Amino acid sequence: MPDGASGRSASILVLEDRDAVATLTLNRPAARNGLSIALLDALAAALRDIATDPAIRCVVLQAEGPVFCAGHDLKEITARFADPDGGHAFFADSMARCAAVMQAIPALPQPVIAAVQGLATAAGCQLAAACDLVIAAEEARFCTPGVEIGLFCSTPAVALSRAVPRKAAMEMLLTAEPIGAEEARRIGLVNRILPGAALRAETAALAARIAGRSALAVQLGKRCFNHQTGLPLPQAYEVAAAAMVENLLAEDAAEGIGAFLAKRAPEWRHR
Amino acid sequence: MPDGASGRSASILVLEDRDAVATLTLNRPAARNGLSIALLDALAAALRDIATDPAIRCVVLQAEGPVFCAGHDLKEITARFADPDGGHAFFADSMARCAAVMQAIPALPQPVIAAVQGLATAAGCQLAAACDLVIAAEEARFCTPGVEIGLFCSTPAVALSRAVPRKAAMEMLLTAEPIGAEEARRIGLVNRILPGAALRAETAALAARIAGRSALAVQLGKRCFNHQTGLPLPQAYEVAAAAMVENLLAEDAAEGIGAFLAKRAPEWRHR
Amino acid sequence: MPDGASGRSASILVLEDRDAVATLTLNRPAARNGLSIALLDALAAALRDIATDPAIRCVVLQAEGPVFCAGHDLKEITARFADPDGGHAFFADSMARCAAVMQAIPALPQPVIAAVQGLATAAGCQLAAACDLVIAAEEARFCTPGVEIGLFCSTPAVALSRAVPRKAAMEMLLTAEPIGAEEARRIGLVNRILPGAALRAETAALAARIAGRSALAVQLGKRCFNHQTGLPLPQAYEVAAAAMVENLLAEDAAEGIGAFLAKRAPEWRHR
Repeated sequence: MPDGASGRSASILVLEDRDAVATLTLNRPAARNGLSIALLDALAAALRDIATDPAIRCVVLQAEGPVFCAGHDLKEITARFADPDGGHAFFADSMARCAAVMQAIPALPQPVIAAVQGLATAAGCQLAAACDLVIAAEEARFCTPGVEIGLFCSTPAVALSRAVPRKAAMEMLLTAEPIGAEEARRIGLVNRILPGAALRAETAALAARIAGRSALAVQLGKRCFNHQTGLPLPQAYEVAAAAMVENLLAEDAAEGIGAFLAKRAPEWRHR
Repeated sequence: MPDGASGRSASILVLEDRDAVATLTLNRPAARNGLSIALLDALAAALRDIATDPAIRCVVLQAEGPVFCAGHDLKEITARFADPDGGHAFFADSMARCAAVMQAIPALPQPVIAAVQGLATAAGCQLAAACDLVIAAEEARFCTPGVEIGLFCSTPAVALSRAVPRKAAMEMLLTAEPIGAEEARRIGLVNRILPGAALRAETAALAARIAGRSALAVQLGKRCFNHQTGLPLPQAYEVAAAAMVENLLAEDAAEGIGAFLAKRAPEWRHR
Repeated sequence: MPDGASGRSASILVLEDRDAVATLTLNRPAARNGLSIALLDALAAALRDIATDPAIRCVVLQAEGPVFCAGHDLKEITARFADPDGGHAFFADSMARCAAVMQAIPALPQPVIAAVQGLATAAGCQLAAACDLVIAAEEARFCTPGVEIGLFCSTPAVALSRAVPRKAAMEMLLTAEPIGAEEARRIGLVNRILPGAALRAETAALAARIAGRSALAVQLGKRCFNHQTGLPLPQAYEVAAAAMVENLLAEDAAEGIGAFLAKRAPEWRHR
């Protein structure tokens, strides 16, 4: 089955909702889960739907096969060098679609957890870095090897350089050498490392815990976090203090604080 | 003794000046050193006094009891949900006072060292994160558990996200799980870890060493550091180069360089 | 031979080009490679020449003697306190020249790797921090001890605070204590640690690997990295996506991708 039409994109991106957690599974294992236009479009559509679905409170992004994601689909790219414009229009459109997906993840109301079971390379490394949390299998590796093919990983660097210290990012970008899960955790790209066999179950359990919290508090908090990060300190505190007041006036804070002081379980209204 | 009036706030915040070091001790151990309005006001007043006291050259912030600081006083907050405005005015005022204290620490001319002996949670974690340096006892733990009570730690995230990598901050905020001193040091929230029994003496010794330097150099340096951090590189270098020239023209630099070259101890004018 | 005239600066800064790698060796070991005006000028001139030399594709910065670089030349500075203006004009000029060199390194088209064999202190620590990558010998140490001489390391803090977490930078600046190579790697100031005997050969090998890549991709990538780092996310992605398209349309990407898919070695046009 060709994987071009977005209507049939379930084949290349498997969507599953269970108990308020949406799980997106990259499913082009034979193509190393390369980010073809079709797969980028499927991701964009899935994220768009999740953004407005009040039943979803956490998202897991995972992948089938030994590779998490190998980045852009090089065969798709190379075919367009023969275009009359040398590929210009196609490349500009591809990069815009990819950047939109990468920005849709931090912009999504719900938290997104990447479960990286294998190699995450180039835009695949960027995809993991763009998620709020990254859980990695012991076998996971991360790499931005664009310089090996004459194509510096400039867009992956955007997400990478916001997750790890500057020199660590430059080392990955300039050397093209893959790093293991431990080194990725050391520099801040990975939050937790698990045995490969436990990765999906443990990530699902973490997602379920997050999904069990007040959706209002979690979503207001994620939005505020991303908003304040780049601001000068006084403006950051203005934004965050306003978020705290808004959060306090929503019913879930009164319920949560009351439950805490009474040592009982809270009953969230904004689930 | 009720702890409302600022005039009696010495009971909830113990101030001690010795050898140019001001030590502020949070002293509501039975209330887990919760940041009541009275305690926030006492901290604000103490920092305001220190800011203009030329005899103080370093500040230590520490706490009595097993908890460093448990954040906002939840009983105080919950009582105001019954206000005619649902607590709106009180919450807005509380958050403004708290944000002012948190910004007064980096804005203080003198360096501030937190000595964290136990749990620092929510705005208590923020209080530690807002300090210039954090020395932790082996038993210290750090946590931003607001999502547990339906109230995302949005203002703590401001200080936290400026101290640690982005994904490490999101992990603390989304999971609500406490981290130990070692993990806090690994991510950059803690500078040094000491056995609990040595925490106060060692922190005092570090504060004394800093207080023994030229106050002019230290204060000009702290101010410049915080000013340049958020600027683009060219402006950052302009600001910092101007600070270097100002520092060089003050007498302490000539004395310090002369003493260094002559291998004698310097005699600071700006102590 | 006096080291004032820039025409004779080869004695204080040894320049060597080999196989597309330019190696700059600080060569004032008796003066602990202090950044005299002459040495700053020699560095500025060397970087200016390299910037426009298409034959150079990577730069190594290393040093002779036990000290990598001890920062500004304190004897040169102290002599000017006796100037009619107390040294004002000289200090302002010195700081401007130094800041220009420090900014010329990230602005250089080619990547710059520091090979730090010994102590890098004050502006010497800044010089290492300003490089794209830092490889350190096991014996290397890093220090910003200005407060010891009444002169806070405000300009070194600019480079330092962009390489390491905020509290780690403040600890170095306020305590003046040197840190070893392992601690420097832990906080992000150092990429790799090598036995001292292997430092030069291994750094040269890494530089050669980088120099073997497409110069177009590497230089476009370094420029884009430094441009996007300080931008908000949407603008960062705009800049980086445009860089990717430009990179894709240059011949080296087509050659590199073609070679990768055909499993052959690429033949770069932009070497």
